Amino acid sequence: MFKQTLKQIVTYEAGKPIELVMREFGIKQDEIIKLGSNENPYGTSAKVIQTLQDNAYKASLYPDDSMYELKNALSARFGIESKEVIIGAGSDQIIEFCMQALNHQNACVIMAKVTFAMYEVYARLAGVEICKTASEQHNLTEFLQLYNECKSRNMRISAVFLCVPNNPLGECLDAQAVEDFIKQIDKDTLVIIDGAYQEFAAHKDALKAFNPAHLVSAFENVIYLGTFSKAYGLGGMRIGYGIASEAIINMLYKVRPPFNVTTLSLQAALVALEDRAFVEKYIESNAAQMLLYEDFARENGFSFIPSYANFITLTHKCIESTHLCDWLLSKGVIVRNLASYGLNALRITIGTPQQNVRVFELIKTYLQTHN
Amino acid sequence: MFKQTLKQIVTYEAGKPIELVMREFGIKQDEIIKLGSNENPYGTSAKVIQTLQDNAYKASLYPDDSMYELKNALSARFGIESKEVIIGAGSDQIIEFCMQALNHQNACVIMAKVTFAMYEVYARLAGVEICKTASEQHNLTEFLQLYNECKSRNMRISAVFLCVPNNPLGECLDAQAVEDFIKQIDKDTLVIIDGAYQEFAAHKDALKAFNPAHLVSAFENVIYLGTFSKAYGLGGMRIGYGIASEAIINMLYKVRPPFNVTTLSLQAALVALEDRAFVEKYIESNAAQMLLYEDFARENGFSFIPSYANFITLTHKCIESTHLCDWLLSKGVIVRNLASYGLNALRITIGTPQQNVRVFELIKTYLQTHN
Repeated sequence: MFKQTLKQIVTYEAGKPIELVMREFGIKQDEIIKLGSNENPYGTSAKVIQTLQDNAYKASLYPDDSMYELKNALSARFGIESKEVIIGAGSDQIIEFCMQALNHQNACVIMAKVTFAMYEVYARLAGVEICKTASEQHNLTEFLQLYNECKSRNMRISAVFLCVPNNPLGECLDAQAVEDFIKQIDKDTLVIIDGAYQEFAAHKDALKAFNPAHLVSAFENVIYLGTFSKAYGLGGMRIGYGIASEAIINMLYKVRPPFNVTTLSLQAALVALEDRAFVEKYIESNAAQMLLYEDFARENGFSFIPSYANFITLTHKCIESTHLCDWLLSKGVIVRNLASYGLNALRITIGTPQQNVRVFELIKTYLQTHN
Repeated sequence: MFKQTLKQIVTYEAGKPIELVMREFGIKQDEIIKLGSNENPYGTSAKVIQTLQDNAYKASLYPDDSMYELKNALSARFGIESKEVIIGAGSDQIIEFCMQALNHQNACVIMAKVTFAMYEVYARLAGVEICKTASEQHNLTEFLQLYNECKSRNMRISAVFLCVPNNPLGECLDAQAVEDFIKQIDKDTLVIIDGAYQEFAAHKDALKAFNPAHLVSAFENVIYLGTFSKAYGLGGMRIGYGIASEAIINMLYKVRPPFNVTTLSLQAALVALEDRAFVEKYIESNAAQMLLYEDFARENGFSFIPSYANFITLTHKCIESTHLCDWLLSKGVIVRNLASYGLNALRITIGTPQQNVRVFELIKTYLQTHN
């Protein structure tokens, strides 16, 4: 009855929810620290909460499927046209649209060895071959090499995934280097630039800041993805966006289900986009607290990749990440074990100062008692 | 770059949103009557609104992707097991999962001539041939004939769609007749029983009431779909469910994107499911008001199909539905023109008594001035 290819699909392992920790360990909700899914540790902006409360009565009404207001707001923010925007249930839904819409006949997609797991999930569902670069982190020389190798095998390359900064490792390519790379890519290859964590990278280093308006005007085969799930504090509302030429957006619209985001998500995103003070305050806190994590790592024998996002990925040669993550979980701290990415590492979302102090204390206790 | 087959895909025409009518006709929000999308005209239950307000602060947190609580609640309600349930962003997302997961090689799908438009949209996206029965309304003799015809052409039938009651026409098959039909269908054909409007049908006539627990225990190749968008008043929250054998649910999980419903949607659905008084009151009002629509139709020269749902589909031999719908829209009343279904008909959601009085008045005025 079902496709044989589904057997290869491994179900995505999501970060653990608070409810599970409450159930499994009997820990109270307000004692749990969730730093496993790169959510905004300050929660949602007070203005967004107010909007959600004011608009709760609209829960019965289907959303405005034209998404008129939010598309206009994003257009104004980025200096693009409304018809160059598509809204998704998280930016990962737009990855899904791309994989569904692209012609993958005799083609492969290219991505870094260690990058956002959903690229592979959606590529597998589309039945397209996946080629990964040798290095774990993004390396554009390797990307180009792999691209040319695929071409020399008479394969088309339907898409190239660039995650800037990269989840779950944290490194980020320079915007200029990516542009130089795209110039060497055929026009019938879609270059997917995933900027889910761009707000943090752009704050840390201007060389890592991507300009969607510029990309779309310079390249007809690029889509830029952004999300409200991270800096904007709307992880639970499932809303993100894609910016590309009108021709690309029109094709993605063909595979978009109607009403793909909720009525309240549209309202929340509109207000979140306007409340810049909330986002900027968080980004600054993230940058300051990141330095504390780097110090903590150095002082306690952890290796780390300098991160341009709102998380840090730590490894320790004497520690098994699965064991440490499980131990932290039993203490009510949720971090992300990267074993499912084939790494002996853990990814920790940079929390509030108070949360981070607790994480540092706990990991120190673990090192003392388990080493 | 994109699939050639996308060219055939016609973008789904959604019911018009209130925001559009406000923009286009300068009508105030509270003067607009929206009876175009079969939403609950009483809105959302007060208990759900309270829950949404209380949980608005959770907007930053990804949902519990195991959907533990809601799956348990649905299991208890229907007398099934949690592993026999999958939650979707509306039940239409579960239709999408089915179309993506099924093996459509050398196969077709069967549906009624006039039925929910998304069946065809998702089938086209999956690239499977679509066979429709000759009659507009569901006719199981024709379904079986078509099924056998396809088999005699050496085609597999990957899915049969039964919409009970049928949107947008309103007729409903008897549950026993559907069971007798399924017994004649091969086990490798998935029978999709779409019960989006079941709550209304079951109230009107016990013979039209489908029992998901019974269906799943009796047939290994059936999936029953339900939604929170209609009777439960959560159209804007995008949440529905599928009930089937564990084997089917497991395969659909393979194509489900993680976090496919929002955090607040899960909370809202849980409370909506418990607030039976709200739903029952609405269903009773719907039944009573439906009789008024039938009287109105008879008195004003409209034909209608007796409806088992929360809408009625009207036709009038002297009226062009597009013209009437546009005229009503200019007066702030949104109903659904069925021209996109190839019918000269309009589908009106049964509103509150007050809304319906206004609709009757307006249509009478239209008949007097345009006939």
